[in-house]
Amino acid sequence: MGKKYRVGILGATGTVGQRFIQLLQGHQQFEITALAASDRSAGKPYAEACAWKLTGSIPENVREIAVMPIEPPLDCDIVFSSLPSTVARETEEAFARAGYPVISNSSSYRMDEDVPLLIPEINADHLGLLETQRQKRGFSKGFIVTNPNCAVMSFAPPLAALHRKFGIESVVVTTMQAISGAGYPGVSSMDITDNVLPYIAGEEPKVETEAQKILGTFANASVEKADFSVSAQCFRVNVLDGHTASVRVDLKQTATLEDVVEAMTEFPSLSLHSSPEKFIEFTDEPSRPQPRLDRDNGKGMTITVGRVFPDNVFDYRFVALSHNTVRGAAGSAILNAELLIDKGII
Amino acid sequence: MGKKYRVGILGATGTVGQRFIQLLQGHQQFEITALAASDRSAGKPYAEACAWKLTGSIPENVREIAVMPIEPPLDCDIVFSSLPSTVARETEEAFARAGYPVISNSSSYRMDEDVPLLIPEINADHLGLLETQRQKRGFSKGFIVTNPNCAVMSFAPPLAALHRKFGIESVVVTTMQAISGAGYPGVSSMDITDNVLPYIAGEEPKVETEAQKILGTFANASVEKADFSVSAQCFRVNVLDGHTASVRVDLKQTATLEDVVEAMTEFPSLSLHSSPEKFIEFTDEPSRPQPRLDRDNGKGMTITVGRVFPDNVFDYRFVALSHNTVRGAAGSAILNAELLIDKGII
Amino acid sequence: MGKKYRVGILGATGTVGQRFIQLLQGHQQFEITALAASDRSAGKPYAEACAWKLTGSIPENVREIAVMPIEPPLDCDIVFSSLPSTVARETEEAFARAGYPVISNSSSYRMDEDVPLLIPEINADHLGLLETQRQKRGFSKGFIVTNPNCAVMSFAPPLAALHRKFGIESVVVTTMQAISGAGYPGVSSMDITDNVLPYIAGEEPKVETEAQKILGTFANASVEKADFSVSAQCFRVNVLDGHTASVRVDLKQTATLEDVVEAMTEFPSLSLHSSPEKFIEFTDEPSRPQPRLDRDNGKGMTITVGRVFPDNVFDYRFVALSHNTVRGAAGSAILNAELLIDKGII
Amino acid sequence: MGKKYRVGILGATGTVGQRFIQLLQGHQQFEITALAASDRSAGKPYAEACAWKLTGSIPENVREIAVMPIEPPLDCDIVFSSLPSTVARETEEAFARAGYPVISNSSSYRMDEDVPLLIPEINADHLGLLETQRQKRGFSKGFIVTNPNCAVMSFAPPLAALHRKFGIESVVVTTMQAISGAGYPGVSSMDITDNVLPYIAGEEPKVETEAQKILGTFANASVEKADFSVSAQCFRVNVLDGHTASVRVDLKQTATLEDVVEAMTEFPSLSLHSSPEKFIEFTDEPSRPQPRLDRDNGKGMTITVGRVFPDNVFDYRFVALSHNTVRGAAGSAILNAELLIDKGII
Repeated sequence: MGKKYRVGILGATGTVGQRFIQLLQGHQQFEITALAASDRSAGKPYAEACAWKLTGSIPENVREIAVMPIEPPLDCDIVFSSLPSTVARETEEAFARAGYPVISNSSSYRMDEDVPLLIPEINADHLGLLETQRQKRGFSKGFIVTNPNCAVMSFAPPLAALHRKFGIESVVVTTMQAISGAGYPGVSSMDITDNVLPYIAGEEPKVETEAQKILGTFANASVEKADFSVSAQCFRVNVLDGHTASVRVDLKQTATLEDVVEAMTEFPSLSLHSSPEKFIEFTDEPSRPQPRLDRDNGKGMTITVGRVFPDNVFDYRFVALSHNTVRGAAGSAILNAELLIDKGII
Repeated sequence: MGKKYRVGILGATGTVGQRFIQLLQGHQQFEITALAASDRSAGKPYAEACAWKLTGSIPENVREIAVMPIEPPLDCDIVFSSLPSTVARETEEAFARAGYPVISNSSSYRMDEDVPLLIPEINADHLGLLETQRQKRGFSKGFIVTNPNCAVMSFAPPLAALHRKFGIESVVVTTMQAISGAGYPGVSSMDITDNVLPYIAGEEPKVETEAQKILGTFANASVEKADFSVSAQCFRVNVLDGHTASVRVDLKQTATLEDVVEAMTEFPSLSLHSSPEKFIEFTDEPSRPQPRLDRDNGKGMTITVGRVFPDNVFDYRFVALSHNTVRGAAGSAILNAELLIDKGII
Repeated sequence: MGKKYRVGILGATGTVGQRFIQLLQGHQQFEITALAASDRSAGKPYAEACAWKLTGSIPENVREIAVMPIEPPLDCDIVFSSLPSTVARETEEAFARAGYPVISNSSSYRMDEDVPLLIPEINADHLGLLETQRQKRGFSKGFIVTNPNCAVMSFAPPLAALHRKFGIESVVVTTMQAISGAGYPGVSSMDITDNVLPYIAGEEPKVETEAQKILGTFANASVEKADFSVSAQCFRVNVLDGHTASVRVDLKQTATLEDVVEAMTEFPSLSLHSSPEKFIEFTDEPSRPQPRLDRDNGKGMTITVGRVFPDNVFDYRFVALSHNTVRGAAGSAILNAELLIDKGII
Repeated sequence: MGKKYRVGILGATGTVGQRFIQLLQGHQQFEITALAASDRSAGKPYAEACAWKLTGSIPENVREIAVMPIEPPLDCDIVFSSLPSTVARETEEAFARAGYPVISNSSSYRMDEDVPLLIPEINADHLGLLETQRQKRGFSKGFIVTNPNCAVMSFAPPLAALHRKFGIESVVVTTMQAISGAGYPGVSSMDITDNVLPYIAGEEPKVETEAQKILGTFANASVEKADFSVSAQCFRVNVLDGHTASVRVDLKQTATLEDVVEAMTEFPSLSLHSSPEKFIEFTDEPSRPQPRLDRDNGKGMTITVGRVFPDNVFDYRFVALSHNTVRGAAGSAILNAELLIDKGII
């Protein structure tokens, strides 16, 4: 079995924090040894501090762990962070400076030039930034690695497949995002029942900038962003889990519909512990992907793509879907940590 | 008060048929004298034949009307049709040939070159096609007039405002459509609960072609379509009434954000009986329009537009919303009939 | 038209406060002259202080009213209160002591022996308590009148009909309550989507005690409670507006099914401004009442009752429904004020 | 591993049929060898005949199985039936007569005197009826065994616990049932969105009669029904899976709250393949059980009970919840088959 890394979770009582705990049940490489949350929770046993919102009950292995304040030191080797962006910037730096690998799901550092914005299947080479990061920030052992925004996660993988083969000129994406993306209590039922919300604070700018960095090129100790432009309109819809992205894309090179589908279906997965069998699953059923039916594909780690067609205005269009709190948050962070171990960085 | 026109409703027991009845309560110009529905219903009193799905109970003035088969003659001066497209083509022609003005909400004739696809505020001059239609089809008194697809209705008005002032180059629209658009029983609750459906049969082609005809130019007894292209991806979301359209648009001429907003807000309404005070209502609240809060603007006859912004890939983007069974169906047909009376055609 | 009373609303920015404003639009007897809300809102124009959650926009006549702190004096003749129970007790007394008639929707005073718990159609004679109240509390001009809990409002009227004719031995009620009953933001969408909540804080005790007072007898300056017992289990369901009550009842005297239905349908409405045509509407359609279809009966002021049947364990069972923020809250308070004017008390 | 029984599923394309297939994936004792469905599907590969509505895709092991007509012979040792009651009576008898053990989820035979209505943990001794059944009906090898209605399944287990210890005098149950209970397409989204339905065709009589047979006593080759009376009001609510029952109960003997909770928590599970660790799980969290959070307890085979309290009208009240298509349908039938094997009857 080998050594298990001892992990701590920052923001452990939140929606994503709960997913971290759920996904780490029975994990071969990690065991949870520390849970940190806001002052209000600190000191209480986790089972008392947390209003558990996932299926079933709080797992036995964390019920009695006393919640710690969100500051170093914590009794662990690695820190997973799902802090709100208001506190993430300062706190995550403090942990990195104190020597912890910080695997962050927060948005604070994603666009910092020296911080990898990582999707292991796509841009593992961006880990080269860590050297730059340590030098620039004066970190000794610690560092910060981030994963993309949950909405970006739903369409960056098929874009990567197309970008690699044909180049991308421009992208228009319209997202229909699940309520769990807003955390708990998050979206009021009075707002979303029989309704669609045309606005998610801060979301459109994230969706319009992250993909270019993810698909950028690592060279000379930095990442040069891909040069396509992205237009994003982001909506909240009455779905529990699973972000749907409606995408149009212009390619740099000519590609047939078969080329496009092949590029997606052949894009390889990895063989890390949490890697799904298929990174991108293509469906040609007319009415798929659907969040309720497809969000759990690959245990929530697969991106499902369907309705790939030539478009009247762009070259192609398609619909992509991912589980926003698994692949779009906690699951991606865990996969990032597995990659770091695999690469010998942790 | 003047003469009241006696109207018949084809497909009277369906979702749109029920809206016709509801909207015609207390109407100054129309009284319902005939209700026609499928053979299964024919002969029964309406109250018995119809599973009423709108708020409240079946209005008193139609409860006892005996449902007729869907064929001429019907005891009325005007026929409103909300027939399924499978039967509409043949049946509506039969009524027109028998001398009835047929005001149709069906898709069958919308794209026929000699049939007006009408939004009174936008293209009343397309009524000139009726002369062509009568000659071509050999109708004496009767004729067919159509209103647009419910999804098209949500974004054609702001497009018209922009088209008139600046010209339109291309449009990308992503719709989030209400379940009432599918009629009753329509969408299974098993399909839409906690879900989004990425496919509505036959919808994307309609949305990609109707706007160009609506915004076309009437000259020489025919309509020349506007020459922009439209890309449409259509989704069903868990909303009862109200279609939301997420739109990007490239203009032919340069326009500032102020120009764009002004073009929309200044687009005039009419003064027909069912005309809303504002044809297009502009909102600058960040989180509007929303279907539940805005679908009933102007008693369901106003198009609400918000989130108008410059776009990274297109010139502008915005969100538009209309009530799909009022302005997007029965209400539009009624407005068309009011226009025809106003123009002296009926 | 006569004099219009100037009314102030306490808790004007909340869900029920918004309903007060909506229902008072165009009211013949009342005009809104003061709006009071929590300190955070005080000083701002109402349109800025309030996150409006009802259909449409904030009515013009209140947009510019500056929100006042919740304390006397307010520029008005009558005060409607929809304060949270935590602050209602002290604040409402302060207003009553300062000479204002306080028409309260809060729970604080409902069960106080000297405070009428009023349903005008049922127990207008309980207004006799006001004399007692003034003496006991030393109020000069002001007083406090309350309306029932929103869930009680759904089944107390049919119970009153049965109680008056046959006497009631015991009642078992199971409620399925709408999310608007919890205010805004109220119930998290993460809690109610694809779910039922078996617990509403503080609700079951209210439902188990208020009906006996409402149906009590006024004599000797006090109300003697009706002597039946009530068992209540209260659930929150995924419905926007409209509380459904599933009721079994044992009667003191024998009654046929026809007797029971007749007692309900014959129970008279009043002729106050907001009185519905029918206080209780009986339906024999097997699948009614339904919240979405029946909550707006009588403009939200009618109680709809259906599925009245003999029961295996009790004498009878039935399903009752009312609009929880209209008849169950703001509408009831307004009706109480209309009654007070009619009786010459205001 | 031992021999695997070859099973056929009648009604294989329906909601419950799909659950059978899902639950039999990787089952140690059963392998699916035959799928039967209505004539429309017969002859097609299952993947083509079935509109799969459960999470993920149709399992590989059944995709290519050709759907058979619903009549004997079928290539299998055991038949699971989830036929609509209209066809179940005749068809299930035909299979039993042809020698197949018929494990039925249909309602047709549940109340027949010679047919076990089985919950393995409660009344395994009712299998003694099979001898009677064979004699009476002239079956040689085949027979029919049934499981309860899905709503009954949610509250019969806690009732059994109380009945065994204290005896039951009477029961009042109000159910809030999930949409999946109506199959597919089943409940129209137009009916259940923002709504509660107070009527489920045929449901209340089933709920009022099945529990007495389940808790009846097997003696002299027949089952004497328990002598308590049941009152049921059944509602459909906007929940995907999971029936909630709101229950009041009068006991024959005095019992403290502790006694009542203990009776439930101590009620033993079995050790069949599909047996959950706990047959009844008791929770004292104020806001549980909830369908979304608790329906999957024990992989959908556990009944979760909470909010057990003394009642004003009855002795006790509680809320019980079960997964209606697992424990309330396919899972129960599979458990019945496992019991039959365990008892040597198959």
